[in-house]
Amino acid sequence: MKRNVLIIGAGGVAHVAAHKCAQNNILLGDIHIASRTIEKCQAIIDSIKEKDNQCGPGRIVAHQLDALDVEATKQLIHDTNSQIVLNLGSPFLNMSVLQACIETGAAYLDTAIHEDPAKVCEAPPWYNNYEWKRRDACHKAGITAILGVGFDPGVVNAYGRYAVDTYFDTVDSIDIIDINAGSHDRYFATNFDPEINFREFTSTVWSWEDSQWKANKMFEHKKEWDMPVVGTRPTYLTGHDELHSMSANLNVPNIRFWMGFGDHYINVFTVLKNLGLLSEQPIRTAEGLEVVPLKVVKAVLPDPASLAPAYTGKTCIGDLVKGTKDGKPQEVLLYNICDHEESYAEVGSQAISYTAGIPAVAAAMLIADGAWDVKEMKNVEELDPKPFIELMNRIGLVTRVRDSQGDRVLDPYAESVELAEASLHTDSNH
Amino acid sequence: MKRNVLIIGAGGVAHVAAHKCAQNNILLGDIHIASRTIEKCQAIIDSIKEKDNQCGPGRIVAHQLDALDVEATKQLIHDTNSQIVLNLGSPFLNMSVLQACIETGAAYLDTAIHEDPAKVCEAPPWYNNYEWKRRDACHKAGITAILGVGFDPGVVNAYGRYAVDTYFDTVDSIDIIDINAGSHDRYFATNFDPEINFREFTSTVWSWEDSQWKANKMFEHKKEWDMPVVGTRPTYLTGHDELHSMSANLNVPNIRFWMGFGDHYINVFTVLKNLGLLSEQPIRTAEGLEVVPLKVVKAVLPDPASLAPAYTGKTCIGDLVKGTKDGKPQEVLLYNICDHEESYAEVGSQAISYTAGIPAVAAAMLIADGAWDVKEMKNVEELDPKPFIELMNRIGLVTRVRDSQGDRVLDPYAESVELAEASLHTDSNH
Repeated sequence: MKRNVLIIGAGGVAHVAAHKCAQNNILLGDIHIASRTIEKCQAIIDSIKEKDNQCGPGRIVAHQLDALDVEATKQLIHDTNSQIVLNLGSPFLNMSVLQACIETGAAYLDTAIHEDPAKVCEAPPWYNNYEWKRRDACHKAGITAILGVGFDPGVVNAYGRYAVDTYFDTVDSIDIIDINAGSHDRYFATNFDPEINFREFTSTVWSWEDSQWKANKMFEHKKEWDMPVVGTRPTYLTGHDELHSMSANLNVPNIRFWMGFGDHYINVFTVLKNLGLLSEQPIRTAEGLEVVPLKVVKAVLPDPASLAPAYTGKTCIGDLVKGTKDGKPQEVLLYNICDHEESYAEVGSQAISYTAGIPAVAAAMLIADGAWDVKEMKNVEELDPKPFIELMNRIGLVTRVRDSQGDRVLDPYAESVELAEASLHTDSNH
Repeated sequence: MKRNVLIIGAGGVAHVAAHKCAQNNILLGDIHIASRTIEKCQAIIDSIKEKDNQCGPGRIVAHQLDALDVEATKQLIHDTNSQIVLNLGSPFLNMSVLQACIETGAAYLDTAIHEDPAKVCEAPPWYNNYEWKRRDACHKAGITAILGVGFDPGVVNAYGRYAVDTYFDTVDSIDIIDINAGSHDRYFATNFDPEINFREFTSTVWSWEDSQWKANKMFEHKKEWDMPVVGTRPTYLTGHDELHSMSANLNVPNIRFWMGFGDHYINVFTVLKNLGLLSEQPIRTAEGLEVVPLKVVKAVLPDPASLAPAYTGKTCIGDLVKGTKDGKPQEVLLYNICDHEESYAEVGSQAISYTAGIPAVAAAMLIADGAWDVKEMKNVEELDPKPFIELMNRIGLVTRVRDSQGDRVLDPYAESVELAEASLHTDSNH
């Protein structure tokens, strides 16, 4: 049992997580929100009060923090008596915040792999370069550290684990498909921090194919998928965090990530990239000013949080898993549909932030109640997916399954039992 | 008679002008090249020697100069005994250099209207905001100041004057058409300073229609023209320097400028503009750095001079003039064709720089020999176009004329005489 949550960061995902923590503060205890700019933390607290999203009594407090400063972070964890740290700031902060947790005993959660600002796209598996180097330290200190527990990475890792365990004898492939079929009123915007968004797409695309890493280029492989609710959508093979752990933890030879992109996004991205405006390396202007082009592009683009009021439409993210069961080909899609307008009505954020923030809070709740308080460093697919999926069904993200039996809400406990029974029944017929 | 030329600037146009001055230094005397970066001036001198483009004996010297510093510029004019100043630096320098000329008695030439870095697109006629305010000062000091004597503005102004005087009784319209049908090996580049290039297109498009200023938007009006050599090309109504003086000095009710743009240019421009990356106003990055987006875009784009070695194809720039002669409709196109590869072979620059640099040198030669040494501030259409067109025919830019009589090289003196004779002949038939 752990209590009191320190949220680091005050962007869109932190905003959603703070609202959802406040709705569940009877379990989670005090909520603290810390970022470089305390006013952004206070604005989140104001919006929680405005939407009347605090459920039980308890403190919700804003703090100023430079989370690259390990000592300052340790001090804040100590002063607030936080036993759970939800790191929802920039991925540049992961290793500093993790270190503060290791040294204070707090549980650690994040939603993306650590990144070095001076590098894009590191050698796979990327986790090996940073977080996994602290596995032993977490083990020795008995620290629960859950890596990458947003939607993707996060929920899609749990879907992969659940599908492998439940529906298959052998699994050939997991295709993770991420479609945002929403639209907003701006010429162009990214759905989360533009700097992080573009960094995902500016270098080598790593995929897990035939049980090894394969390098591709961005927008080299296009594939259309017929997805529930949002329909047939074009996607492109994309490098993504979860591949770097699922390839190691699930015995599946092909794991790929497909991101949906419209022509307009690709055009803007292509222009900016080809001109050199997405570079993370500094250039010098004619006047002698040294500046990183990507940071200038970030500065001129809309704040993703500002899109929410006018955002309409839905996201569809899921795992299409293929393999065999009882000698026959089997295909299962586990997915979630999230609505931009409903997300905004509930917590004041669009669905991209909503789908990343809810899983992080679900994981915090599973640490608080002990189910996931494993006192080790784990990626999501190493944990029991059933309580996670079941809890998300109740707090805002409903998982559905589409297979040869049809399309239905996934009750992870019932589905496992039914299939086990079906399997027994099949066996008794032999 | 004036001698010794000080060239200010060391970009593509200055490069061409320096080569052409060196070819004609028997008339022009010593050549001095000054810019903020003396190495760029020295590189031009090295290329003149490499191409063996110096004709007679005489000095060619590089100087370091901040031309915004009027006193320093005066001192350099004095020290070099320059009687002609060719201002081919950024249009931000015009008023400072002009002031230095007024105070030293040197003749002044430039190729573009003065611009304030903090403003784009000023109220028409733009010259009224800057240069024309010094008309009286030039008159009192007996200063020859020729404004805008590149190709456009410059040659196209002379074409307008020549056509009005030679082929028409009444002129209804002058459409200035600028087509670059060349291609280079980069993803995207501007043909001259990107900052100045983009500033032309980011605000209101002013045109002279029905004898008044009309405001349009960029890329609002598209028109295809069937042009000699380069064929049928799409162009867009564009604001441009020469309209601001030709509207005042020629009694023509419609004067418009049409710039040729390919779809790729428009796409890149549209993306950058819509994202706010072409703004001349500073923004602040998340890290607190204040930076002008347009200057960052300039810094990532290729140096226009670097395009020259791989540039192929031709430019076609001219005036299509419509009106009446002897009661009948008359239509005349005066134009020049310039070849990128030939320009590079001769002086090491592409045709965009070549077409802007040659007219400036021709004007300097007409000041040196007295023909244009008018001791007043003048725009090009206020001067006799015949010696200018005739001289350019000999030093690298051949003017052609296309009308109902066919397509031929324009001999401005012979054509005037022939038409006068034809007119007399017509009269005697009455």
